[in-house]
Amino acid sequence: MRKISFERNFSKHAEGSCLVKFGDTHVLCTASLEEKTPPWLRNSGKGWVTAEYGMLPRATGDRMKREAATGKQGGRTQEIQRLIGRSLRAVVDLSALGEKQITIDCDVIQADGGTRTAAITGGWLALYDCLKWMDTRSMIKLDKVLKDHVAAISCGIFASQPVIDLDYLEDSAAETDANFVMTGSGGIVEIQGTAEGAPFSQEEFLNLLSLAQDGTRELVALQKQAIGG
Amino acid sequence: MRKISFERNFSKHAEGSCLVKFGDTHVLCTASLEEKTPPWLRNSGKGWVTAEYGMLPRATGDRMKREAATGKQGGRTQEIQRLIGRSLRAVVDLSALGEKQITIDCDVIQADGGTRTAAITGGWLALYDCLKWMDTRSMIKLDKVLKDHVAAISCGIFASQPVIDLDYLEDSAAETDANFVMTGSGGIVEIQGTAEGAPFSQEEFLNLLSLAQDGTRELVALQKQAIGG
Amino acid sequence: MRKISFERNFSKHAEGSCLVKFGDTHVLCTASLEEKTPPWLRNSGKGWVTAEYGMLPRATGDRMKREAATGKQGGRTQEIQRLIGRSLRAVVDLSALGEKQITIDCDVIQADGGTRTAAITGGWLALYDCLKWMDTRSMIKLDKVLKDHVAAISCGIFASQPVIDLDYLEDSAAETDANFVMTGSGGIVEIQGTAEGAPFSQEEFLNLLSLAQDGTRELVALQKQAIGG
Amino acid sequence: MRKISFERNFSKHAEGSCLVKFGDTHVLCTASLEEKTPPWLRNSGKGWVTAEYGMLPRATGDRMKREAATGKQGGRTQEIQRLIGRSLRAVVDLSALGEKQITIDCDVIQADGGTRTAAITGGWLALYDCLKWMDTRSMIKLDKVLKDHVAAISCGIFASQPVIDLDYLEDSAAETDANFVMTGSGGIVEIQGTAEGAPFSQEEFLNLLSLAQDGTRELVALQKQAIGG
Amino acid sequence: MRKISFERNFSKHAEGSCLVKFGDTHVLCTASLEEKTPPWLRNSGKGWVTAEYGMLPRATGDRMKREAATGKQGGRTQEIQRLIGRSLRAVVDLSALGEKQITIDCDVIQADGGTRTAAITGGWLALYDCLKWMDTRSMIKLDKVLKDHVAAISCGIFASQPVIDLDYLEDSAAETDANFVMTGSGGIVEIQGTAEGAPFSQEEFLNLLSLAQDGTRELVALQKQAIGG
Amino acid sequence: MRKISFERNFSKHAEGSCLVKFGDTHVLCTASLEEKTPPWLRNSGKGWVTAEYGMLPRATGDRMKREAATGKQGGRTQEIQRLIGRSLRAVVDLSALGEKQITIDCDVIQADGGTRTAAITGGWLALYDCLKWMDTRSMIKLDKVLKDHVAAISCGIFASQPVIDLDYLEDSAAETDANFVMTGSGGIVEIQGTAEGAPFSQEEFLNLLSLAQDGTRELVALQKQAIGG
Repeated sequence: MRKISFERNFSKHAEGSCLVKFGDTHVLCTASLEEKTPPWLRNSGKGWVTAEYGMLPRATGDRMKREAATGKQGGRTQEIQRLIGRSLRAVVDLSALGEKQITIDCDVIQADGGTRTAAITGGWLALYDCLKWMDTRSMIKLDKVLKDHVAAISCGIFASQPVIDLDYLEDSAAETDANFVMTGSGGIVEIQGTAEGAPFSQEEFLNLLSLAQDGTRELVALQKQAIGG
Repeated sequence: MRKISFERNFSKHAEGSCLVKFGDTHVLCTASLEEKTPPWLRNSGKGWVTAEYGMLPRATGDRMKREAATGKQGGRTQEIQRLIGRSLRAVVDLSALGEKQITIDCDVIQADGGTRTAAITGGWLALYDCLKWMDTRSMIKLDKVLKDHVAAISCGIFASQPVIDLDYLEDSAAETDANFVMTGSGGIVEIQGTAEGAPFSQEEFLNLLSLAQDGTRELVALQKQAIGG
Repeated sequence: MRKISFERNFSKHAEGSCLVKFGDTHVLCTASLEEKTPPWLRNSGKGWVTAEYGMLPRATGDRMKREAATGKQGGRTQEIQRLIGRSLRAVVDLSALGEKQITIDCDVIQADGGTRTAAITGGWLALYDCLKWMDTRSMIKLDKVLKDHVAAISCGIFASQPVIDLDYLEDSAAETDANFVMTGSGGIVEIQGTAEGAPFSQEEFLNLLSLAQDGTRELVALQKQAIGG
Repeated sequence: MRKISFERNFSKHAEGSCLVKFGDTHVLCTASLEEKTPPWLRNSGKGWVTAEYGMLPRATGDRMKREAATGKQGGRTQEIQRLIGRSLRAVVDLSALGEKQITIDCDVIQADGGTRTAAITGGWLALYDCLKWMDTRSMIKLDKVLKDHVAAISCGIFASQPVIDLDYLEDSAAETDANFVMTGSGGIVEIQGTAEGAPFSQEEFLNLLSLAQDGTRELVALQKQAIGG
Repeated sequence: MRKISFERNFSKHAEGSCLVKFGDTHVLCTASLEEKTPPWLRNSGKGWVTAEYGMLPRATGDRMKREAATGKQGGRTQEIQRLIGRSLRAVVDLSALGEKQITIDCDVIQADGGTRTAAITGGWLALYDCLKWMDTRSMIKLDKVLKDHVAAISCGIFASQPVIDLDYLEDSAAETDANFVMTGSGGIVEIQGTAEGAPFSQEEFLNLLSLAQDGTRELVALQKQAIGG
Repeated sequence: MRKISFERNFSKHAEGSCLVKFGDTHVLCTASLEEKTPPWLRNSGKGWVTAEYGMLPRATGDRMKREAATGKQGGRTQEIQRLIGRSLRAVVDLSALGEKQITIDCDVIQADGGTRTAAITGGWLALYDCLKWMDTRSMIKLDKVLKDHVAAISCGIFASQPVIDLDYLEDSAAETDANFVMTGSGGIVEIQGTAEGAPFSQEEFLNLLSLAQDGTRELVALQKQAIGG
């Protein structure tokens, strides 16, 4: 794995925030609390955690068009922000949260592969800090709402070898690319595996899964260290 | 698995077409050939296979808003059509296709769970027929371009039991939901597993994978029967 | 006229539905009931019947761009769905319907000329079945709400001869093209006549009108047969 | 008919322009020449005449939302601009025009019923002046390109009486409403008749058609007077 | 300054309206009253004055694309309508207006430089007439709501000389271009100065400011004359 | 003035980049070089410098909607990015740049007033570094292309006192708010002054201008220090 770091309280305004770095991939995650739920949860007593994802135009090697200027979020953006939201909700008790919404904005300041896994892993910290902020104000009980850690890592087969936490070059050249989202207690939240070139075998896949289990265990340890737990 | 059927040549106009039914899920897949590639492949000698996905507004229990009227394709739509495209490209030799584009339109006439797996499985037949149409006209060699079958199936854990090919009710209630895309020779093209409620274990996941391998083997057999192979 | 057929209850989910075929033109019409009216009718005691129209991308000889992907409904689409809505409302007592909305979705599965006239004629059957569904549940009285049949047919001058129910080739080559919407009792609901080439005379137009009166009379007879009336 | 007037050369910039008034309905028509055709006519030797239609937000009794602000042209706008374009093209020899495009912009400054008929009738004058401007510069021969006059009028049944050139109040209350587009030589270019309430009979329709023939004859006479012909 | 004229009550429908001409620049300003405020002022007791700006496609030498057709208002349009709104609100007591909204639509019929300054100056008259209309109906007290006149003029440096009220040609060639919005009592509401070529000095800017003070004084005198005050 | 800092080479990918801080306002400016000009400059031999501006959703006290999700850039965004572009172009010789385009992306990571002035001042450094990168590769001569420094500062009247470099609270409460863009040699590039409450006098405005001249002189000194000049 590349060098991982978390800088909590990066933002002056947000209820929770974290600048997460996976090597040269830098993602700013902020958590924003709103006293309302989406329409379909009104009067349900339940809250919601959602995520939005964006990339600064020159986060990448070539400048990409600004999505605000093109007038819509691309398919990749929507896919990633849906994944981040699902992953974080997997460890939140929405009833214990009550009729509130927390939006995790994950904005890629610099990209070098693995932006979605960094966003989930850092997004968990922004969420943690937001819930702690609420706990301090007696709005919720942190340990009732947040059930576990969640972290994500990419694994792939590159030059016939299983590798973890692929950077952009490895990712571009990988034969198989998979993202794994796991909890602190080792449960699997989400698996997304894609054969870029030739289809892969069950055995190859199990190698990646095993690698990912080690990796997310390490990420969760780093999260714990970051919150001083 | 539910009753599966394929009706080839459903469309008068398309180069290839197939109405695929997985139980009450009915998807019309058409393949349209165009003599051009996307901009990034121009002068590369390579072709492209892409997919678009849509649902008729009342394909579902409650009427959904028409995406053409709301002015954009939702995140789910984009996610699915990207998946279909990737899955089909995994068994196509784009260089052997040459500078042409084949668009597989998958339109859900009626939905009852598993629309994306039906679309991939039926889309392969539309693609096959389109390539055969081209072979007949000496534009390509079918067996050079199409390297294998591809089929997809959903598996999930429902009432603590692994189940295959979930209908809408099972899917809504499933604890875990996974989609598997596999080739005729048993290779894995794509795995997407999501914990809807509690995270799942590696063991549970392997049960689903095994179920999926049986299921896709059966789907491939049905595809072969449909093309008289 | 080409071979006309109606397949009622085509859809599992919709309150009313009909697959209508005018030769190779196939349109799926579904009726969806919602317990709300558009804003301008709120608290008026009146309901609303509206229509939406779409074409599958490969319903036509050349693949058309998907309107959901281009981000807007074209002028032709809007013109046709406004026409279908007006035509059906002409035989509905909106006060007797009460504050409900029925949306008739007309989706062209395969096109070969005359999609709008097929949509109106088949849409009436979907509407009928929806109203019957409501009657069965004592929500309305079918015979108070639905005042008459409505059906539509195209007529044109092709190779100097008046022709009825033009297919795509005839339509493309017609000198004059007119669509007529008429009720079961012979009243005219809508007339749209367009000179494609040279302007036409009053006499020519009256020939088309007379042809249309015969044609819609026949269509209404077929509707009656379909509902067993 | 209401008082009709034409003010040619209303615009300083346009190749042809006309402010047309049908009573309190005031429409500014401008003709803009561009040295290019739409893509589908490239290298065909043919030109194109198209129209765009708009309403100032407070042209009407209640302020309407500005279409530029809502982000799209409504169905009614698109329907009308397609009608204007078709009507004008009916009297133009597009081959004699050559590979040029003339856009007729019809902007409603004040509305009181009949904006589309005023737009067609005044649009013809803007087109005439644009073609004359081109003739003066030896770009075309006016009398080869412009084959005839074209004018339009609305007729309706109001309080059981046939009336012509309906203002907004008459139009809102009319039982039947029809727009007729006719040439100087009496040919019919377009007929659009709609039953607003009860369906209408063939006889009623023929009364309106006859009224329209008188009306358009008068409008053509006024056009001739305006161009000093 | 070019010849300035105001034609009040230009529109039959609007509560206030004015066709303002600054030479060949003609802008139609209408004021529309609505009995509601924007969301952020609800229950505040305050009203709102806002402006929208548009150009007819052929108001200019070359036809511009219609913003309704392109699907969005350009940056220049938004900039100008925000300026007009701010300028008019500077002389309105929004509390005295009460929970109502007045929209000033400024539509450029013909453009020859200075459309925004003409819009502000003529927009004030439309606003005045709207407020007078309300006063007549005892909805407000005109002299409580409207605190002062407001008028705007452009100044620039053209061929090294300060000039006022630039037409299109002067504006295109100006080295420096500034717009000034001032009240009847000589207060400055808005200053926007831009170096088109070389940066300008403080002294040059003061010359323009002085010119603008004379110009707006004259415009206010013309406004007073127009309202017979 | 608040504490000002510049962090050059903040981005791994961009040809030039700078994280600029004006107190708690943090803006990331990147310069991206493209080997093409906008269409209207093609074959002119001239290049172009343009700017885009964005705010992360939680850069502010309350979370704002993401412009990419709402589908358009707001009026304020467009106004600011046009201002940044004009300001930077004022010190660039576009002919000496040649047919290339440099896009300066200014993304507000954290906002506390004065984001546009920080963006211009920091954007100049990103532009400088991009041009230096080009000079190193012998693509241009830096000193031929970049004619001068440019920097911007806000001034306002707050509690009757002129203040410089307003933070968000001061800005919200200011009676008058002006932004000044000036060059290293003291020339004025852009002035934008707005009375938020009562109109302001010429004398008040001159006080602000004088303050701004001191402020931009200091900013230019800091820019020089940052580039070691």
